[in-house]
Amino acid sequence: MPYTSISAVAEELRAGIVTPTELVQETLESIQERDGEIQAFVTVMHEQALREAELAERELRTGLYRGQLHGVPIAVKDLIAVKGARLTAGSQVLAEHSATEDAMVIELLRKHGAILIGKTNTFEFAYGPYSPPTRNPWKQTHTTGGSSGGSAAAVAAQFCLGAIGTDTGGSIRIPAACCGVTGLKPTYGRVSCYGVIPLSWSLDHVGPLGRSAEDCAILFDAIARYDPRDPNSVSGPSSPTNRGTTSLLAGTEGRGPLSLQGLTLGVPQDDFVDPIHPEVRAAWRASLRVLEEEGAQIVPVILPRPTMQLYRTIQKPEASLAHMQNDWYPARSDAYSELVRTRLIEGQQIPAVDYLQAQHERRQLASSLRSIMQRVDAFVLPTIPVPAIESELAGTEIEIDGVRENATTAYLRLTMPFNLTGLPAISFPCGFSSDGLPIGLQVAGKPFEEATILRIAHAYQQLTDWHRREYVEVSQQ
Amino acid sequence: MPYTSISAVAEELRAGIVTPTELVQETLESIQERDGEIQAFVTVMHEQALREAELAERELRTGLYRGQLHGVPIAVKDLIAVKGARLTAGSQVLAEHSATEDAMVIELLRKHGAILIGKTNTFEFAYGPYSPPTRNPWKQTHTTGGSSGGSAAAVAAQFCLGAIGTDTGGSIRIPAACCGVTGLKPTYGRVSCYGVIPLSWSLDHVGPLGRSAEDCAILFDAIARYDPRDPNSVSGPSSPTNRGTTSLLAGTEGRGPLSLQGLTLGVPQDDFVDPIHPEVRAAWRASLRVLEEEGAQIVPVILPRPTMQLYRTIQKPEASLAHMQNDWYPARSDAYSELVRTRLIEGQQIPAVDYLQAQHERRQLASSLRSIMQRVDAFVLPTIPVPAIESELAGTEIEIDGVRENATTAYLRLTMPFNLTGLPAISFPCGFSSDGLPIGLQVAGKPFEEATILRIAHAYQQLTDWHRREYVEVSQQ
Repeated sequence: MPYTSISAVAEELRAGIVTPTELVQETLESIQERDGEIQAFVTVMHEQALREAELAERELRTGLYRGQLHGVPIAVKDLIAVKGARLTAGSQVLAEHSATEDAMVIELLRKHGAILIGKTNTFEFAYGPYSPPTRNPWKQTHTTGGSSGGSAAAVAAQFCLGAIGTDTGGSIRIPAACCGVTGLKPTYGRVSCYGVIPLSWSLDHVGPLGRSAEDCAILFDAIARYDPRDPNSVSGPSSPTNRGTTSLLAGTEGRGPLSLQGLTLGVPQDDFVDPIHPEVRAAWRASLRVLEEEGAQIVPVILPRPTMQLYRTIQKPEASLAHMQNDWYPARSDAYSELVRTRLIEGQQIPAVDYLQAQHERRQLASSLRSIMQRVDAFVLPTIPVPAIESELAGTEIEIDGVRENATTAYLRLTMPFNLTGLPAISFPCGFSSDGLPIGLQVAGKPFEEATILRIAHAYQQLTDWHRREYVEVSQQ
Repeated sequence: MPYTSISAVAEELRAGIVTPTELVQETLESIQERDGEIQAFVTVMHEQALREAELAERELRTGLYRGQLHGVPIAVKDLIAVKGARLTAGSQVLAEHSATEDAMVIELLRKHGAILIGKTNTFEFAYGPYSPPTRNPWKQTHTTGGSSGGSAAAVAAQFCLGAIGTDTGGSIRIPAACCGVTGLKPTYGRVSCYGVIPLSWSLDHVGPLGRSAEDCAILFDAIARYDPRDPNSVSGPSSPTNRGTTSLLAGTEGRGPLSLQGLTLGVPQDDFVDPIHPEVRAAWRASLRVLEEEGAQIVPVILPRPTMQLYRTIQKPEASLAHMQNDWYPARSDAYSELVRTRLIEGQQIPAVDYLQAQHERRQLASSLRSIMQRVDAFVLPTIPVPAIESELAGTEIEIDGVRENATTAYLRLTMPFNLTGLPAISFPCGFSSDGLPIGLQVAGKPFEEATILRIAHAYQQLTDWHRREYVEVSQQ
């Protein structure tokens, strides 16, 4: 597929230089040719996508323009309901399940003219930061991260021009980092979870993945909407993001070479991120210099570091209850993998006093971060402490900078603080390891300030060209 | 004491016909004479009250008028911090504990010139709907209800002109009903819990007790204020209650004989309230006729009835955690009564999934009630299904209209739905049993509509004189 970003193709679609049908056909061909290896998709919506493309084509011809997503093929994590399509959540429990209505994000994508190309692979019920059997397009022996690994791999492999994922502990940002794409976890409640299979309601987020921050901004602008059907949906204060995509990045576009002037970026102390891989540390440090050159002021901050136990004490019982309320567990107990079944049982055993104590500590963490954010506009840190690990090491103990750590903990521990606090956070590529694997940089912002972190990522991407590198080059190195 | 209400004494205090010192001295004499029997007080703040009265007297003389509470003796439940005074929560655990700062409600009472006369008895840590050893002023062999029984008895026995209590499952309204006074549980979050020993944070409320709805309105108006120190404090929409006491009851005063015209009152179906004592049912039915005569439209409503298990599944773990966080339990485990210690242990054993499921059902209950309240302005029902029971029956199984029921459940089951939903609710006397015990009527309103339920109670009290009857007449019958 000759197009690498939504922003690049949108004008040509509008002008009729390329048609939605041509674009969707090329996309389907790419999937057919190469997804046998990558396995990003659970379901390819071949016929529906072509029908939707024809409709978009007619609309565009008659001058009914729905915006930059009109006619653009988008992939959707198979945790999100698309009417009439299978909805498996990556689990045998739902192997035969189809959705009877669209999720809110799907309604909004359709309203903006996007073409739904297929459903992407997820870890079973999104309950882990991997996405087997999906292979990392940069190095097929390595994990894509997860649980939105199918979405991230589909974007990286150019099987679509953007994708939707979900993020409970890092499930958008971790695969974005592993697969060298950009992924945005919005502020808690900003994108509706209606029609999305829940993992843990107080931590769940829906958000976009794309080749660039600009593409994530286009998708975010389409899907961020108050929805009374999601009890945790919030309308948020009026902010640039409510005034259309262009203004999301306006700060950058308008200001030229010093587009981040006036922004103060907080860099957490080493013991917040350690242990991290030396190449991740080097890429992080180098990216700070780029942001500084662009006018940002870099200051050190001391962040409180939540434990995995705190996260798990909230995450697990919420997940266990959701599975009980939906009559999946224990009704279909045998259909779960042993790992997920064990986690659901563990979640049932956590006492309410522990859960409440964890929620109490979580509020204190949020309050500390809010207070630190009176001095800084965003935090800048690695997304995950290592480049993507080999798939066979998923869930095992790995060594990071001489320290042994469980790989699942390693993948989650730098992203989950922003699920606990609900702050918006973006991951985008900031370099490559000596193995040719992408390294992710994470920028977390103030509540409802998605525009700020998108601007930072966009400015970085304007200055560098890492996000434009194509996986095929590297995987053939 | 010749004064029976705040509204009656306020003008005379302002005019200098009676001085705060005279009033406080008379009050202290009443307490000294009769509280040996009633045992409403844990601590009488004799000297401080006289000093505060002198100060109020000087202020009034120099024309610094703080409003209708200026110089008025008020009693405070011993769960609420008054700087320098003992704060025992009715428990041996805190027998030697004194408060180092004022609770928010105390700050506000002082700002309005109220005189703090003493700390009233509560069930141990407010963990039960009784208040031993306090005796019911109407019949000393009978319970006062609780846990704010000391406050209610102090008002009924004229040991003060108003009191502050707390209400987690009914602890203001139950003793108000048992002791023949008026008690208001405001909307959740409307009165700050800062400086109040918690029972269960998501159910706890602070509110006033008085001889009349008018007195409760005066107190409520003084203490309802947003407080950033209480994480659950809410400022609420602008409503009549933010415009001063007079306007709280303005609807009634201005409109004369048909002061409730335009209001629709919902009466729940029998199986919401049953079993109830026949005399309670008769008093309830009679009060509906009074409200109807006053212009209100009475309509039947079907209310979902929450189970005690739902209430306990939320209430208990929150209480257990609060005691652990404050280092009372298990640190001072031996100092608890066996009953409270057992409840704290039970609360630790409730699984998080059960707590979360209960919170889920609670939200559904709140949503049902909100939806029914689109048709009605308030619900009218008994406060408790029986007149006050004999003290020796507290906690045992009793018979109500031929049905056996645990007395604690009976006391709580009609009030706790408005803790679960956070709706404002008032209890006021609507008659007497053949035994000479008061019967309470409960009116619950829409969120932040305290003014409406205060108006309803006030209109009722203008038409009847039950609330003016003094306990001494009856207890001497």
